[in-house]
Amino acid sequence: MANIAKKVSWSSRAEESGVAGERTPLFNGSEQPRLSRQLSGGGSVFQIGRLSTVDLEEEITSDEDSQRGRPKEIPHNEKLLSLKYESLDYDNIENQLFLEEERRMSYMGFRCLEISRWVVCGLIGFLTGLIACFIDIAVEELAGIKYQVVKQNIEKFTEVGGLSISLILWAVLNSSIVMLGAIIVAFFEPIAAGSGIPQIKCYLNGVKIPRVVRLKTLVVKVCGVICSVVGGLAVGKEGPMIHSGAVVAAGVSQGRSTSLKRDFKIFEYFRRDTEKRDFVSAGAAAGVSAAFGAPVGGVLFALEEGASFWNQMLTWRIFFASMISTFTLNFFLSIYHKNPGDLSNPGLINFGRFESDVRNSHCVFFQLYVVCGLLGALFNLLNYWLTIFRIRYVHRPCLQVMEAMLVAAVTATVSFTMIYFSNDCQPLGPEHTEEYPLQLFCADGEYNSMATAFFNTPERSVRSLFHNQPGTYNPLTLGLFTLTYFFLACWTYGLAVSAGVFIPSLLIGAAWGRLFGILLASITSSGSIWADPGKYALIGAAAQLGGIVRMTLSLTVIMVEATGNVTYGLPIMLVLMTAKIVGDYFVEGLYDIHIKLQSVPFLHLEAPATSHWLTAREVMGSPVTCLNRIEKVGTIVDILSNTSTNHNGFPVVVQPAKLCGLILRSQLIVLLKHKVFVELARSRLTQRKLQLKDFRDAYPRFPPIQSIHVSQDERECMMDLTEFMNATPYTVPQETSLPRVFKLFRALGLRHLVVVDDENRVVGLVTRKDLARYHLGKHGLEELQVAQT
Amino acid sequence: MANIAKKVSWSSRAEESGVAGERTPLFNGSEQPRLSRQLSGGGSVFQIGRLSTVDLEEEITSDEDSQRGRPKEIPHNEKLLSLKYESLDYDNIENQLFLEEERRMSYMGFRCLEISRWVVCGLIGFLTGLIACFIDIAVEELAGIKYQVVKQNIEKFTEVGGLSISLILWAVLNSSIVMLGAIIVAFFEPIAAGSGIPQIKCYLNGVKIPRVVRLKTLVVKVCGVICSVVGGLAVGKEGPMIHSGAVVAAGVSQGRSTSLKRDFKIFEYFRRDTEKRDFVSAGAAAGVSAAFGAPVGGVLFALEEGASFWNQMLTWRIFFASMISTFTLNFFLSIYHKNPGDLSNPGLINFGRFESDVRNSHCVFFQLYVVCGLLGALFNLLNYWLTIFRIRYVHRPCLQVMEAMLVAAVTATVSFTMIYFSNDCQPLGPEHTEEYPLQLFCADGEYNSMATAFFNTPERSVRSLFHNQPGTYNPLTLGLFTLTYFFLACWTYGLAVSAGVFIPSLLIGAAWGRLFGILLASITSSGSIWADPGKYALIGAAAQLGGIVRMTLSLTVIMVEATGNVTYGLPIMLVLMTAKIVGDYFVEGLYDIHIKLQSVPFLHLEAPATSHWLTAREVMGSPVTCLNRIEKVGTIVDILSNTSTNHNGFPVVVQPAKLCGLILRSQLIVLLKHKVFVELARSRLTQRKLQLKDFRDAYPRFPPIQSIHVSQDERECMMDLTEFMNATPYTVPQETSLPRVFKLFRALGLRHLVVVDDENRVVGLVTRKDLARYHLGKHGLEELQVAQT
Repeated sequence: MANIAKKVSWSSRAEESGVAGERTPLFNGSEQPRLSRQLSGGGSVFQIGRLSTVDLEEEITSDEDSQRGRPKEIPHNEKLLSLKYESLDYDNIENQLFLEEERRMSYMGFRCLEISRWVVCGLIGFLTGLIACFIDIAVEELAGIKYQVVKQNIEKFTEVGGLSISLILWAVLNSSIVMLGAIIVAFFEPIAAGSGIPQIKCYLNGVKIPRVVRLKTLVVKVCGVICSVVGGLAVGKEGPMIHSGAVVAAGVSQGRSTSLKRDFKIFEYFRRDTEKRDFVSAGAAAGVSAAFGAPVGGVLFALEEGASFWNQMLTWRIFFASMISTFTLNFFLSIYHKNPGDLSNPGLINFGRFESDVRNSHCVFFQLYVVCGLLGALFNLLNYWLTIFRIRYVHRPCLQVMEAMLVAAVTATVSFTMIYFSNDCQPLGPEHTEEYPLQLFCADGEYNSMATAFFNTPERSVRSLFHNQPGTYNPLTLGLFTLTYFFLACWTYGLAVSAGVFIPSLLIGAAWGRLFGILLASITSSGSIWADPGKYALIGAAAQLGGIVRMTLSLTVIMVEATGNVTYGLPIMLVLMTAKIVGDYFVEGLYDIHIKLQSVPFLHLEAPATSHWLTAREVMGSPVTCLNRIEKVGTIVDILSNTSTNHNGFPVVVQPAKLCGLILRSQLIVLLKHKVFVELARSRLTQRKLQLKDFRDAYPRFPPIQSIHVSQDERECMMDLTEFMNATPYTVPQETSLPRVFKLFRALGLRHLVVVDDENRVVGLVTRKDLARYHLGKHGLEELQVAQT
Repeated sequence: MANIAKKVSWSSRAEESGVAGERTPLFNGSEQPRLSRQLSGGGSVFQIGRLSTVDLEEEITSDEDSQRGRPKEIPHNEKLLSLKYESLDYDNIENQLFLEEERRMSYMGFRCLEISRWVVCGLIGFLTGLIACFIDIAVEELAGIKYQVVKQNIEKFTEVGGLSISLILWAVLNSSIVMLGAIIVAFFEPIAAGSGIPQIKCYLNGVKIPRVVRLKTLVVKVCGVICSVVGGLAVGKEGPMIHSGAVVAAGVSQGRSTSLKRDFKIFEYFRRDTEKRDFVSAGAAAGVSAAFGAPVGGVLFALEEGASFWNQMLTWRIFFASMISTFTLNFFLSIYHKNPGDLSNPGLINFGRFESDVRNSHCVFFQLYVVCGLLGALFNLLNYWLTIFRIRYVHRPCLQVMEAMLVAAVTATVSFTMIYFSNDCQPLGPEHTEEYPLQLFCADGEYNSMATAFFNTPERSVRSLFHNQPGTYNPLTLGLFTLTYFFLACWTYGLAVSAGVFIPSLLIGAAWGRLFGILLASITSSGSIWADPGKYALIGAAAQLGGIVRMTLSLTVIMVEATGNVTYGLPIMLVLMTAKIVGDYFVEGLYDIHIKLQSVPFLHLEAPATSHWLTAREVMGSPVTCLNRIEKVGTIVDILSNTSTNHNGFPVVVQPAKLCGLILRSQLIVLLKHKVFVELARSRLTQRKLQLKDFRDAYPRFPPIQSIHVSQDERECMMDLTEFMNATPYTVPQETSLPRVFKLFRALGLRHLVVVDDENRVVGLVTRKDLARYHLGKHGLEELQVAQT
């Protein structure tokens, strides 16, 4: 277990709640599930806390046993909830300082703020578009060089024999490029691995994933993705754009870079979680928009993942950022393609326009759905096992680099073998769209069709599958390609390289769909209707992607926008929904799997359906560590220093325990740092009034309590929290049902929710992990174990 | 003022809050603004309640004077807030009955519910599509007959002279058809007038507009819109589809029709505001989708207007309904057009595909924006004055019918005159798309170009303007057409007929845009780039529509989807945003104007920017009429019968005034009706346990208190509210700032929010009108007057 803890790359410092006692961690850091299995079918609420202690003990014991017996075993790792993640606070901290500032601000001030929000969103879109453009051009150029070198080499050796040298050249080239990408990711910034979409999902959900929006991450991400794509891995460059956009947004909106130690003294108002998260939504949307040329899809992605509370102005800004992003990319790419002003290539991947409309006779598509859902589920399942294996055995950076190199070499070898043994020759027509046609053993004027699929960037392959004339591929080629690429892509996702899973999924689905289309045409032989296998490729691609990532609405819109033909909306939507339903029956979506494997306390949109019989009383953490409104400095320091609890939010009370506010660890830290003490006995310190600016300057990297020195004299001083605490925290009574608590918490994006009794006394505190613990398993409501690590 | 009250067609019975005292209505039903003007710039919060009573008195006196002096005058009618509208409750009433039901329900039960939600959404989409199809076919057929008759008549009289007979025939035909439409609207269901979009906006916002989702409204709406369009008014059939979809949704989802007195005993779970409102969102989206073939636009419309809390499953269902709707329409229309299976006409209005892509050289479009924003604002302003005039003088049904007939006749006359005096003849090519080409005085083989615009359904005219070859129209024709159609459309909107404003706006904009394109081409004479005036027509149409209705995101998507070309997204978005910004500077959007003129307490997305210095204490209504947990029946009856307060929600307290729940008027009514009394002294009644079903059966038309007979003996009985009250209402402390209260209220869709002191005692109640009162005017924060009527 400690093993896993070390591996899990999204590490963090602090636990969320302000709850002391009761939560004594067991030796393995997990906590007993308060909700015993016997109760999952229903039953009286009031027995839960106390019931079946014996059962619980037994369970724990057997758990410990299994831990001792098989120390390497990971028992239901996805059924843990880590306490190490902090939450973002989407609720404004409305303390007196904040209110005073807001009240001082004139209407014009608010207008200016609004305008700067638009400016920031425009900047985010522009920069994201530029980055996408940079990645695209870099990949095009480098891949071009690589393919030219390999092609010449192959052509040279095809005649004289000794193609194994070509194979070695290809494999070594790929491996070394991928090694570069893997090294920067594994050694410098492990968080930049993968597509980054799970991390951004978590961030937008309100979980603070450390280092996820830093400049260094962006740099590593961009270089990493170029290396992976050029290195010929079965990956796409689209997924990472979403992460890149988010980092750009987090950087631009703060008007400074903590990494570069530059503060431009602008946008200081936006230095808090609420505003930052809004901008990160916009950045993610701009990323989607740049990747797929799908601005509306980007907005919907941001909303699906991020927005709990729909805000019209925010949505417009997100849309604006998306538009600017796709426009920027399009504009610069049109210059690069020497066709300035041609705005018909709005994204990194462009499916090409499907001119013909869908006819309802194509509802035969339906047959594809189930199969693709199954294939998606299989992909996820294989990748899940692989990820568990990696967590357990491949957790040292050098091992990770070696695995990446191995995958690169294997990919090259498999591709080469497939091309070598394929005898699918196609005539090289005047209208051929292949960039690097490989002749190999084909007759003059022909090219190897298998090479079209393998010896190409995946984006081009997808487009060929969608748009090439019927008859370009023969079924055997497609079948073999699907099979090999499926396993390669599955192996690749989760490597320590920056790479997306969108394009490989599309490619597998497109190949499989086209195959299906060809077979169907040959069976029915009613050529006119089934003539276009490209449509089947499109639907297959949608189904495969949907089966893997399980986004429905935003993915539909993304596909429709990338296709440029609205009439494909309904079939694509039906395909995606079926793929989701079929897939969900077996295993979760790929991103959700990876989120669960990291034990992130991810809050879904609604409380589990059958959770009405739980109330705040059962859910909350208690007793709560409260502070007095005028509290001794020593007490505060002691509470903050208590590493066994490590709380982040503290209700402030006046005796007897009446709630009068809520204060955060970060605020207390700033107060201690500036020594805002009431009665300094023999102090040299001038007591200056603290401004909001002091809190904003410290945001978001507040120093740890250990770095703040408080002398013995100062410990005796008092601290008046009145001005700094949020005087009106949201509260719920103890009898509130879990769905109601959940709704309030999720809709307002809270971090702490105080539970009070009917005399307004604090009795508990609900935080993210208290709600994220409950989920619907196969046997009704289940409770996840909570782990310290 | 009473005058207005009689006129305002969205009447209702009850006032919202449970607040007694203080709010003594003045003679004119308006209340003194608690927020004095002096304070709008800032200042201490605690003086507000008490400050400047003299000022207020003076203001009121002068107000009264003005009322007496000019009884017909409407002083700032849009600055009133009516108390007569009830709210919808988007928050579940979690009382014991509800919780027991939820707890009894198994996981499979919830799955079945979820499936029935999908089924209902599918049905909504299907029926909405069918209705759209019916309207379309009816309009096509009837308009076809009308135009054939008129055309033959004109052709007959063109040669022999005496075209005035044709004019009279045309005018009489139009007037009588419109008369029919106006009669059913004005006499049978006034709520069916107009496009219905403002009403649906209000409904989705949470305001209960009486009769807006009834079957009768739907029937009148559908017949009315057919009459208006066939009658040749400057209207479209698209707007009413949104209303129609919403009615379908409200009907289908309840599994019964109160109007037809049929209860199918299905979907009983959905008989509450929360679920119903979700379905109405889906219905509205399906309506948009059917009208414009824009399923994603429909979803975004529903979200923009309705959803305060983003719910992924709900969004998918909405999308599903939209998809089914556009698919159904498309399918049946393809059969009607004898081309079954051709799914390329997804909506009622179809802009036709814009094949060519936008190039950035088209950024000259920018010059259009400002002008179109101005034109939109002018349209709204004229219509605003017209509406005020109508409210004051044209409020009797027969007058309304006569006005509608007058407009129809004038429209016909103007059109005829324009056609008659136009000498813009165009050759009748083989590829001509005109359905009814009028030769008039043109040479053989030519047709009158002005007639293309006027002598046609507006949808066809729009399509001609978008797609006809350059040179089809001459500038003078377009200029004259724009001018006359502008005023006709402006006059028409607000008549007592069912009709939409989308198509006329598009038509004005398209004509104006095309004119601009032609002029630009003739100036620059660089033919190749500016060759296609159709693009200018599209952008002009978007700008004009945006300037009038001011929807941005959803409208962009609707336009893009209707165009079928994603590359138009950015220019359309920029156009719409500019039109909105320019337009907002002068006057609000058309729908907002009409909503304000009805004094609806519409809640915007956020509290006004400068409202941080207001707190719940100032905003709330107090003192509150509270009930005891075990209350005397007589007291309850008296409180409910008190017509001067007419409250809808009552906090339930235990002594001393500690909050323990919240109960609604509707619940109390059901309790009284079923005589759920605790100690019946000499009762013949068997005391049966009340079920949730009893509440659902009474929903949504709860009987008035007057219809319930309570005997003198029964008045002495007690009623135990424990089981029926919502035991965990949301509360806020008194010091909570207005934006915070607003956010909680809006995000959770509340109807009542209890304000408590630090001992959890009820001190006030915040309802919709308390929040809707505050708005940002020209001089900072303003407070609307609250009127009883």
